[in-house]
Amino acid sequence: MEQKWNFKPSSTLLDASSLSVRGVLCRIMGHMESDANDPKPVIPLGHGDPSSFPCFSTTPSAVDAVSNALRSGKFNSYAPCVGVLSARIAIAKYMSRDLPYALSPNDIYLTNGCAQAIEIITSVLARPSANILLPRPGYLFYEARAVFVGVEARYFDLVPEKGWEVDLDGLTAIADENTVAMVIVNPGNPCGNVFSYEHLAKVAETAKKLGIFVITDEVYGHLTFGSKTFVPMGAFSSTVPVITLGSISKRWVVPGWRLGWIALNDPNGILKHTKVVDCLKSYLDISSDPATFIQGAISDVIANTNEDFFVKTVETLKMTAEMCYNKLKEIKCINCPCKPEGSMFVMVSLDLSQLADIKDDMDFCCQLAKEEHVIILPGCAVGFKNWLRITHAIEPSSLDDGLSKLKSFCEKHAK
Amino acid sequence: MEQKWNFKPSSTLLDASSLSVRGVLCRIMGHMESDANDPKPVIPLGHGDPSSFPCFSTTPSAVDAVSNALRSGKFNSYAPCVGVLSARIAIAKYMSRDLPYALSPNDIYLTNGCAQAIEIITSVLARPSANILLPRPGYLFYEARAVFVGVEARYFDLVPEKGWEVDLDGLTAIADENTVAMVIVNPGNPCGNVFSYEHLAKVAETAKKLGIFVITDEVYGHLTFGSKTFVPMGAFSSTVPVITLGSISKRWVVPGWRLGWIALNDPNGILKHTKVVDCLKSYLDISSDPATFIQGAISDVIANTNEDFFVKTVETLKMTAEMCYNKLKEIKCINCPCKPEGSMFVMVSLDLSQLADIKDDMDFCCQLAKEEHVIILPGCAVGFKNWLRITHAIEPSSLDDGLSKLKSFCEKHAK
Repeated sequence: MEQKWNFKPSSTLLDASSLSVRGVLCRIMGHMESDANDPKPVIPLGHGDPSSFPCFSTTPSAVDAVSNALRSGKFNSYAPCVGVLSARIAIAKYMSRDLPYALSPNDIYLTNGCAQAIEIITSVLARPSANILLPRPGYLFYEARAVFVGVEARYFDLVPEKGWEVDLDGLTAIADENTVAMVIVNPGNPCGNVFSYEHLAKVAETAKKLGIFVITDEVYGHLTFGSKTFVPMGAFSSTVPVITLGSISKRWVVPGWRLGWIALNDPNGILKHTKVVDCLKSYLDISSDPATFIQGAISDVIANTNEDFFVKTVETLKMTAEMCYNKLKEIKCINCPCKPEGSMFVMVSLDLSQLADIKDDMDFCCQLAKEEHVIILPGCAVGFKNWLRITHAIEPSSLDDGLSKLKSFCEKHAK
Repeated sequence: MEQKWNFKPSSTLLDASSLSVRGVLCRIMGHMESDANDPKPVIPLGHGDPSSFPCFSTTPSAVDAVSNALRSGKFNSYAPCVGVLSARIAIAKYMSRDLPYALSPNDIYLTNGCAQAIEIITSVLARPSANILLPRPGYLFYEARAVFVGVEARYFDLVPEKGWEVDLDGLTAIADENTVAMVIVNPGNPCGNVFSYEHLAKVAETAKKLGIFVITDEVYGHLTFGSKTFVPMGAFSSTVPVITLGSISKRWVVPGWRLGWIALNDPNGILKHTKVVDCLKSYLDISSDPATFIQGAISDVIANTNEDFFVKTVETLKMTAEMCYNKLKEIKCINCPCKPEGSMFVMVSLDLSQLADIKDDMDFCCQLAKEEHVIILPGCAVGFKNWLRITHAIEPSSLDDGLSKLKSFCEKHAK
């Protein structure tokens, strides 16, 4: 008699992975495996992690801060659920520099990178029949986490013709009394846009009218190089409660250090009053924490980083963004509606009618990986079919090479 | 008109926190706050984290390994979802030393400490109407995570009269066709027991008969100092699929480093065949990872740790366990059914009939914290009301002091 096992797989879970950038990039990179002996270098224009490129190296003072915290022996223990106090103090001060009021250390909760901040906040908002409004194009990790905890994901549009601003009328139309929050990502991933002060003010007013909180993903905060400076959504928290997700991953170029945070911008105490704070603390009680010594290092990481390091990173991004934008303009089947002004990405549309043998964006990216070893994220992975998200944050010489290969690929496959 | 907000708190979530050791210890420690000016030291017999005590310091070679990985600059990037390959190879080899067959690196998945391993495995098992069998007394974090993802927690007994062995008849009685797995913790938390080879063989046979997997929490693996040596449950994986949860937290005394793993002991390929592996990989796609450079250090942490370090830790635990057991025997209202043989804890029952003004275990622990600044975990936090879990893994002089204070507290409150 055959042994029977009670376990059955969950389709929700199996589907969730197809919503992750990592899952999609994995599939695309799989198309290179048959060419394992091919000496062509892989050019990674698919993900937002430039840390392995010399021109984006982190600052040595940050490495020293973590090493010192480790060697002190003071941070081998479990951390408090909410995070190490010195880190909460330092992050509150760091964020308050850009706000019209001061955050308290009690407003800051440390997380294992911004990915866990997203996991936590979607879990905190979960209750039967709740829904959350997400931007399209957007980072599908939000949907994956929301769906896993039973929260419905509804999409509002970012409008390319308006510099990827939120379609606020469309957003209002899909909200109802079970809508608990909306998400914005600023500077934008995948669009590379930056929201103006005026637009953010309108977002705040709209959210207030709908009775929903604003979750603002500012993991690319301060990485702007166009006409608009970075304005944190927290500046509008006297209008609407704002939950800011952040991390050191992008500005310090250390995504592998896994240190992020949730900051509650709530001068009117609404998040406390509605028990979001209680739910958040409860969830943190049953969550895993970032490594204690990395938490213990954060006050020194922030204090000891020279402004020059930030300036250099932004200048490099400005240069790679310009190079990318200019080279993309030369490619006939690709259209770039907005010049990138922030983050590490640009969104472009693909004109399939000009291509002979390409079915869709996924097919484009798989064939490009196979033939040229250039990795690009297909728009389907950010909810925007037949577009492409291209990362420009890599070493300029590799970027130049990758874009040339992209161009010749498009020419080869032109009708 | 008052502003209305759509968010409503989740009672599941608010209840979850009361199931966490951290939540309960927090409440108990709160009872000390009114005595903030009291110079009495706090004696922490409540949790399994001896890393701040000199006699339990980690080995310098482990610190060097992490520092070197950090300074190499090679591990600032995101890690693969399943973990850094060198770490998976090293952990597979490390675990295979104690197994009758060799694990492959593909059987190892890195997690952010054992807490995240528990989160991941309960999430992977989740589907409507599934249930999981948990030991009582036990670590309630399992229930909190299971309930949060909609999996029912059912409890089987550990029997103090049989050295805290599993009541296998009782376990069989509560299982049904929706039972997907059972959990054991070996060496035991909170009981300080160690399962014999023969008992583990019976556990495997019982699980097989029920068609359920065995999840074995071996975070205290190798920390044994009684008559029984540590036998990994994976030794029985030809009978039943075994999912081992482990970490460096306890054996290397670095819980704050947050490096754990899930190991699939599955020589017959059942976990693959039933798609547990697919569900696990999917969940890892939407989870946060441990810090990359800590993953990158693990092969050196394991390779460079001298056996003497492990021997010294176990000898210290043997000494503190004996001291604790002998001193507890002198306390009339406390009964210790089994001398501890492993982990860092001992479970004792409280005879409330001998105490004048103590309502229950929680009341006992709160008053003890208030009067003596000694922190002990009440049995209710491990599902065993009116018992106590006492940690002996602290500096011997503090342990002696804490147990004397416990004794005088009991005498003071005796009828």
